[in-house]
Amino acid sequence: MAVVVRNVARAEDPVIEGLARAGVATVHEAQGRRGCLQSHMRPIFSGAQVAGSAVTISAPPGDNWMLHVAIEQLRAGDILVLAPTSPCDNGYFGDLLATSAMARGCRGLVIEAGVRDIRDLTAMGFPVWSSAVSAQGTVKETPGSVNVPVVCAGQLVAPGDVIVADDDGVVVVRREEAAGVLARAGERLAAEEAKRARLAAGELGLDIYGMRERLAAKGLTYI
Amino acid sequence: MAVVVRNVARAEDPVIEGLARAGVATVHEAQGRRGCLQSHMRPIFSGAQVAGSAVTISAPPGDNWMLHVAIEQLRAGDILVLAPTSPCDNGYFGDLLATSAMARGCRGLVIEAGVRDIRDLTAMGFPVWSSAVSAQGTVKETPGSVNVPVVCAGQLVAPGDVIVADDDGVVVVRREEAAGVLARAGERLAAEEAKRARLAAGELGLDIYGMRERLAAKGLTYI
Amino acid sequence: MAVVVRNVARAEDPVIEGLARAGVATVHEAQGRRGCLQSHMRPIFSGAQVAGSAVTISAPPGDNWMLHVAIEQLRAGDILVLAPTSPCDNGYFGDLLATSAMARGCRGLVIEAGVRDIRDLTAMGFPVWSSAVSAQGTVKETPGSVNVPVVCAGQLVAPGDVIVADDDGVVVVRREEAAGVLARAGERLAAEEAKRARLAAGELGLDIYGMRERLAAKGLTYI
Amino acid sequence: MAVVVRNVARAEDPVIEGLARAGVATVHEAQGRRGCLQSHMRPIFSGAQVAGSAVTISAPPGDNWMLHVAIEQLRAGDILVLAPTSPCDNGYFGDLLATSAMARGCRGLVIEAGVRDIRDLTAMGFPVWSSAVSAQGTVKETPGSVNVPVVCAGQLVAPGDVIVADDDGVVVVRREEAAGVLARAGERLAAEEAKRARLAAGELGLDIYGMRERLAAKGLTYI
Amino acid sequence: MAVVVRNVARAEDPVIEGLARAGVATVHEAQGRRGCLQSHMRPIFSGAQVAGSAVTISAPPGDNWMLHVAIEQLRAGDILVLAPTSPCDNGYFGDLLATSAMARGCRGLVIEAGVRDIRDLTAMGFPVWSSAVSAQGTVKETPGSVNVPVVCAGQLVAPGDVIVADDDGVVVVRREEAAGVLARAGERLAAEEAKRARLAAGELGLDIYGMRERLAAKGLTYI
Amino acid sequence: MAVVVRNVARAEDPVIEGLARAGVATVHEAQGRRGCLQSHMRPIFSGAQVAGSAVTISAPPGDNWMLHVAIEQLRAGDILVLAPTSPCDNGYFGDLLATSAMARGCRGLVIEAGVRDIRDLTAMGFPVWSSAVSAQGTVKETPGSVNVPVVCAGQLVAPGDVIVADDDGVVVVRREEAAGVLARAGERLAAEEAKRARLAAGELGLDIYGMRERLAAKGLTYI
Repeated sequence: MAVVVRNVARAEDPVIEGLARAGVATVHEAQGRRGCLQSHMRPIFSGAQVAGSAVTISAPPGDNWMLHVAIEQLRAGDILVLAPTSPCDNGYFGDLLATSAMARGCRGLVIEAGVRDIRDLTAMGFPVWSSAVSAQGTVKETPGSVNVPVVCAGQLVAPGDVIVADDDGVVVVRREEAAGVLARAGERLAAEEAKRARLAAGELGLDIYGMRERLAAKGLTYI
Repeated sequence: MAVVVRNVARAEDPVIEGLARAGVATVHEAQGRRGCLQSHMRPIFSGAQVAGSAVTISAPPGDNWMLHVAIEQLRAGDILVLAPTSPCDNGYFGDLLATSAMARGCRGLVIEAGVRDIRDLTAMGFPVWSSAVSAQGTVKETPGSVNVPVVCAGQLVAPGDVIVADDDGVVVVRREEAAGVLARAGERLAAEEAKRARLAAGELGLDIYGMRERLAAKGLTYI
Repeated sequence: MAVVVRNVARAEDPVIEGLARAGVATVHEAQGRRGCLQSHMRPIFSGAQVAGSAVTISAPPGDNWMLHVAIEQLRAGDILVLAPTSPCDNGYFGDLLATSAMARGCRGLVIEAGVRDIRDLTAMGFPVWSSAVSAQGTVKETPGSVNVPVVCAGQLVAPGDVIVADDDGVVVVRREEAAGVLARAGERLAAEEAKRARLAAGELGLDIYGMRERLAAKGLTYI
Repeated sequence: MAVVVRNVARAEDPVIEGLARAGVATVHEAQGRRGCLQSHMRPIFSGAQVAGSAVTISAPPGDNWMLHVAIEQLRAGDILVLAPTSPCDNGYFGDLLATSAMARGCRGLVIEAGVRDIRDLTAMGFPVWSSAVSAQGTVKETPGSVNVPVVCAGQLVAPGDVIVADDDGVVVVRREEAAGVLARAGERLAAEEAKRARLAAGELGLDIYGMRERLAAKGLTYI
Repeated sequence: MAVVVRNVARAEDPVIEGLARAGVATVHEAQGRRGCLQSHMRPIFSGAQVAGSAVTISAPPGDNWMLHVAIEQLRAGDILVLAPTSPCDNGYFGDLLATSAMARGCRGLVIEAGVRDIRDLTAMGFPVWSSAVSAQGTVKETPGSVNVPVVCAGQLVAPGDVIVADDDGVVVVRREEAAGVLARAGERLAAEEAKRARLAAGELGLDIYGMRERLAAKGLTYI
Repeated sequence: MAVVVRNVARAEDPVIEGLARAGVATVHEAQGRRGCLQSHMRPIFSGAQVAGSAVTISAPPGDNWMLHVAIEQLRAGDILVLAPTSPCDNGYFGDLLATSAMARGCRGLVIEAGVRDIRDLTAMGFPVWSSAVSAQGTVKETPGSVNVPVVCAGQLVAPGDVIVADDDGVVVVRREEAAGVLARAGERLAAEEAKRARLAAGELGLDIYGMRERLAAKGLTYI
């Protein structure tokens, strides 16, 4: 039950970089309003916007051993995704692990658990989206698995899936769907740009989107 | 059951502006420790301090259609207040709606639900107090109501009530009480200023407020 | 049941200052992974890193009277620690109390309840770790106790214990153990420094800590 | 700010009794899916199904003084509704207060706070819907108000409104709407009875409600 | 994106029945401590112990339309599993839907959302494991999907997987692993039976499991 | 850091039995409204009312090894009290451990974590107060401590302290205060009995406790 999968396919770099530029909200819309991790996943500092390939970790509560194992599996451009096997807010990750992960080109960490050394991580510019901040330490006694499918904050994440994260939270894109999602995200961004100008000029969404008739048909009444 | 009320009385501008300057904590005290929304309502960025007239929205969970309807009802100086009819953390509002609301002079949003495009909203300087940040999108299928009384984060908010919001959270002031509350807030601020100087000089609250005798009468013992 | 204990032993200043420099995560490890307050205790602004001697307060829900009493017991270098006798998110503390506490040399507040006047406290540089931000006021009707042992956010805090707090949260160190903990913290920091350089150079924790054999013995399999 | 309103209009007894028989879910539907208190309001024992006129209480956190005041205002058939002015899980109410309330014909208690003496209350058959069970006691130091509008578990409750409560939770019906809601509830119950027989016989809701075409139009695909 | 998958493989009946008899805790252990849904999933009445094949539902927040669609897909022995696309506590399911589901041989419902008509469901003996009880109704406006993989309460559930539920909660077993898990569960139950007798006779787990030496090696000290 | 303390003083049996009869709410009042564990500690079945001497356990998250160690330290009349070193809802305890504990005369378990085999524990009549029910298993890898002071659900519990638990929750009484608390509990029960008869006869608490004057002095107004 404790396995490390070594060869994981990743999406292509330009696709990943395009998804990073699109950001979480647009990517989520572009794939049909799917894939958002739950809203308790928050960034430890604001302003980061990244995408990368998931190296997944399934770890017992209070045991961060598998982070060391996972770091060996990192390639440049990856993002670590840790899901504990039951709810836990311990600080699994701090500045030493971040130093090691950055040395291998890791772009960030998504963890449904706690993280610590916030001041150092912020100074290093290593972004983390977590469900908690806690200095409470962990043990290294029980193996888990690396690069197996995990459920993190309500979403299935397979190794090699693309993770996009920014101030809005985290969204997962299936590796095989990533190029298609990027294409649709681009269309959305273009369409939004045109609408933004009209809305800024004072036009109403009610008119731009032609909503008045349908609202009336559904019974909306002005008094 | 799905109605939009168009003519809503507002408080006078100087009163609203005075309440903004007084801030949430002082306004709350000045009206007898009433009106604070629950503490899970947090600003998406720090430092904003605003007041405005409430344009209220009652919306179904996961459906942001009525925001488009509400924006048409905005006048310069208003604040949108959205209460879902049951708990929901979806991202009802993002940068396009903010662009539209700002074009009509809206000063901010108070929403007991989620909001997204945090980076854009911060760059635009559009303040939001919400119970969640989430990129998870919504549908536009079921009408709700605009400018009806709503309960938002534990407080009744009537259309036209004055909303005051800052880093401490959000407080609602009944429109008809707003001028009186402002007057008492001013008195409090003056009294606090005098006390602040004495406290900064090392005098104790125990002496300034004459508490020692009453504490002893209630049985406080020094050992 | 309502008492104020006046003479409380404190740890020595150089020990307290050393613990502040070590920070929460290191101190917590140095005393055997003990003493962290629960992770819902969050700083009202980021970047503060302090240590001080606990002046403890046991207060009823919604009643901040004892803060005035506790401030008289402060010595330079102390930190106020307030635990309500049942869960409460009211704003017990604001800028006037902070002015008074700072006048007596207080270094900060740890409170498992609410705090308000966030903008002012931030401007004053008075750090607070709290479980809530709320403008909701309190009364002054029921005495509690000062400088008695309290349970705050899951940890026992005795008066005179050393409180260390930073962006990772809060940890408590028994007064009599403080010097020993500082010594071990120093050893940890030195050891970490050496490891950081090796990790930054790309060495793996798996090798530095010699984990491969033990992982294999516990059944970890690479596929 | 601390008032007791003595003369409160109630709905007529047969209307209240009819609403009790209809139950929470049906009443909620019959008034347009409005009025449900939040789902954290749970019965202390199962099987009770009651309705009554609200005698409302606004009380400070941790202070149950106003319950004694409210009991004097009870008439036979009333239900006490207590909303603390900020979140509190203290046990405001136990078997002595229940004895007193029952002596005046009170049918139950709805309280967004704690309650205690669960075994006694169950033996007495006095139903309570609460957000917590806690033996933690309260003080009697600060007056609140009786028979003023309160927000309880997310719903506005005015004195004299009809409260309906059963194993599904609690719903509030405006006094002036109660007769109309009862009429519509009766229609719903009759319609449901007919549907229940058809569903029990194996007919599908898809056919009974004619949903297939509309689902196809909205894009539902069978594969 | 809104699809209904009609042909879903199920596990064999004797395997499903065997898993029901083994119960949640044993099944979870027998498959390597995997598959438990999160602990906020609670039964609406105690004493039920069932297993069945999952008919899965992905539904929008506040919209129960797909339950009608899913009921048509039920075969005798199935269990409905509903996961909303974002957190929602609305009452998606009540006695009419239960009547319809029971007419098709459905053994129960697992829903990470609300349910209502608790008294009726209990009288009917239709077991439900839910995250909430709420009379708050839903709409029928937006299609979702039936028999697609869903994440429910932190676990991936594929259509046709075996769901086991009792007073301890809910566990999911992959369809293709079900027979093997049942075999291991049988071994565990036999082993437990032998241990139970020894423990009841006063033997200690420390001796039965031979733990003393390993505890000493890990540093446990008796004082 | 991993120790087992073997010789622990207990309170006398008649005192413990008297506290059991008094029940949680009365004991809590009799010791000055102190000692209640937080309200998320709930019984797995209703109707149990017990008291016993605490055998305390400090255990890592997700590791139940020390329960086996603690059972050896049980004497007839004891209650196990387990506090994890960080929040965890795993099922630490089930029917085999209960069989072993009962064989040694244990009266129950108080655990700020999960428990499983609810149906068996109920059938065995072994009462548990826990913060969760979960079948999610634990490991046996890391020692903790037995019979050291722990903080459980917000209260300090020392080994040998008296634990009282019933449907209202759990309260802890210091061993050395137990006899005095029992005496005051008896006085309270006698006083309550007299009041209960008067209240049942329709007298008001306002009159029995002489509250009218004090309420008026505090500004309560009837309108």
